[in-house]
Amino acid sequence: MDEDPTALVRRINASAEFNRWCGFDVVSCAPGAVELAMPWRKEAGQYAGFLHAGLVGALIDTACGFAAATLVGPRLLAAHFSVNCLRPAAGQRFLARARVVKPGRQQVFTACELYAIEDGVEKLVATGETLLTVLAKEA
Amino acid sequence: MDEDPTALVRRINASAEFNRWCGFDVVSCAPGAVELAMPWRKEAGQYAGFLHAGLVGALIDTACGFAAATLVGPRLLAAHFSVNCLRPAAGQRFLARARVVKPGRQQVFTACELYAIEDGVEKLVATGETLLTVLAKEA
Amino acid sequence: MDEDPTALVRRINASAEFNRWCGFDVVSCAPGAVELAMPWRKEAGQYAGFLHAGLVGALIDTACGFAAATLVGPRLLAAHFSVNCLRPAAGQRFLARARVVKPGRQQVFTACELYAIEDGVEKLVATGETLLTVLAKEA
Amino acid sequence: MDEDPTALVRRINASAEFNRWCGFDVVSCAPGAVELAMPWRKEAGQYAGFLHAGLVGALIDTACGFAAATLVGPRLLAAHFSVNCLRPAAGQRFLARARVVKPGRQQVFTACELYAIEDGVEKLVATGETLLTVLAKEA
Repeated sequence: MDEDPTALVRRINASAEFNRWCGFDVVSCAPGAVELAMPWRKEAGQYAGFLHAGLVGALIDTACGFAAATLVGPRLLAAHFSVNCLRPAAGQRFLARARVVKPGRQQVFTACELYAIEDGVEKLVATGETLLTVLAKEA
Repeated sequence: MDEDPTALVRRINASAEFNRWCGFDVVSCAPGAVELAMPWRKEAGQYAGFLHAGLVGALIDTACGFAAATLVGPRLLAAHFSVNCLRPAAGQRFLARARVVKPGRQQVFTACELYAIEDGVEKLVATGETLLTVLAKEA
Repeated sequence: MDEDPTALVRRINASAEFNRWCGFDVVSCAPGAVELAMPWRKEAGQYAGFLHAGLVGALIDTACGFAAATLVGPRLLAAHFSVNCLRPAAGQRFLARARVVKPGRQQVFTACELYAIEDGVEKLVATGETLLTVLAKEA
Repeated sequence: MDEDPTALVRRINASAEFNRWCGFDVVSCAPGAVELAMPWRKEAGQYAGFLHAGLVGALIDTACGFAAATLVGPRLLAAHFSVNCLRPAAGQRFLARARVVKPGRQQVFTACELYAIEDGVEKLVATGETLLTVLAKEA
């Protein structure tokens, strides 16, 4: 991988329309670990006004993919992801902390915690994991 | 449950800001089975222009929740959901077909297939499942 | 793949010590679909005398792997599997019906239903899925 | 819960036939955290001689259930569990370290790491999680 991992992750994030709509912000980026934040906006709410489970999943899946990309580059596809909804996701801002659990030549296992932040206080609201496939080089 | 299940599901769908932004449309609704559609829009894209995995998850999780609500009413919370990304989600429209696998007093197991539709042709692009908790009545 | 799929699956099943201890029996085998049975034995019980969740998972994971092997051969590893425990698994015999949802060059998505059989009556007791990685050929 | 959590967990472990066959041993037990070990035996092998994925799942699911029981007592059922197979599970002994991620009145979220031990060296071979339902008191 020639490109600097932080530059790579920021470039992918900027190139995705949905990430821009969400306001996804790459807060930190180290080998195998990424923090991704999103501000609350009312268009992101489910029926009771909490962050929609789809956006909980979007934050987790995206942060996991970025964490994997810091180690193996951009030729990755999410094959499977799962989300545990621990508490209602209510806050002014949301922060996903993703890490690579096990990198590999063909696949990368990742995990993530999602925090809601209200008046500076972090609360764990969801956990999740993503299994990514490393795309084979074209023959 | 006093309210008609279709009316209930349409009312919940209309009351969620994110569902409205996505353009989620309840196409059909029967006891234990719901079809939920979403038109493509470019703000829904990931970096390569396919439907973002977060929205794949949002369609699956929402359709599963609605299918459960047709049987047990609105006092439900998603505890866990998972998504298998089978193919790139590219199409003019997306259709989630969710069904209840096993209803229960304390929890409801559901499953879902997500199809991309291009020029009238359906293609299976993802599968997923959601485990919902039936909220206990207040004492 | 030179070997007949049924012969391949039966050969793998016979070569695994744990499968023999469990009494796993390949009941049927078609391209992309396998049925695997196990008789009840009391050493297979959890504390309440039902089939142990680990054996529910073993039946599902094994049947899914066999279904995948009928299409892509034996060079496979399970990367992820999950199990939904719908009902207590009580019966004289258990039957896992697994199918390939989406085969691929690098990975195979599968799904499975597990039935308990008592006096000839089948009852769905669990569902599950396995994501398998196709091992790359050695260079 | 009147019974001491360690005594409770050891009692459940001793009462399950499959746990005894596996040789499951409760190594440590604290509020919300349990370590469960199993010695290798050749009857536990899959076709290549590694620990069978079903037993990987059995260790994870059982350790997670015990961790939950230390906080909420024995009235628990596993609703969903999942396993990530990171590396071939080869060793003289296996150790599952489970912890409660979020306890609740109706459900308990848990997570687990599974280590293979060879000549005193621990290697992470799998991760997993279990979502347990707290059974409602009979009316």
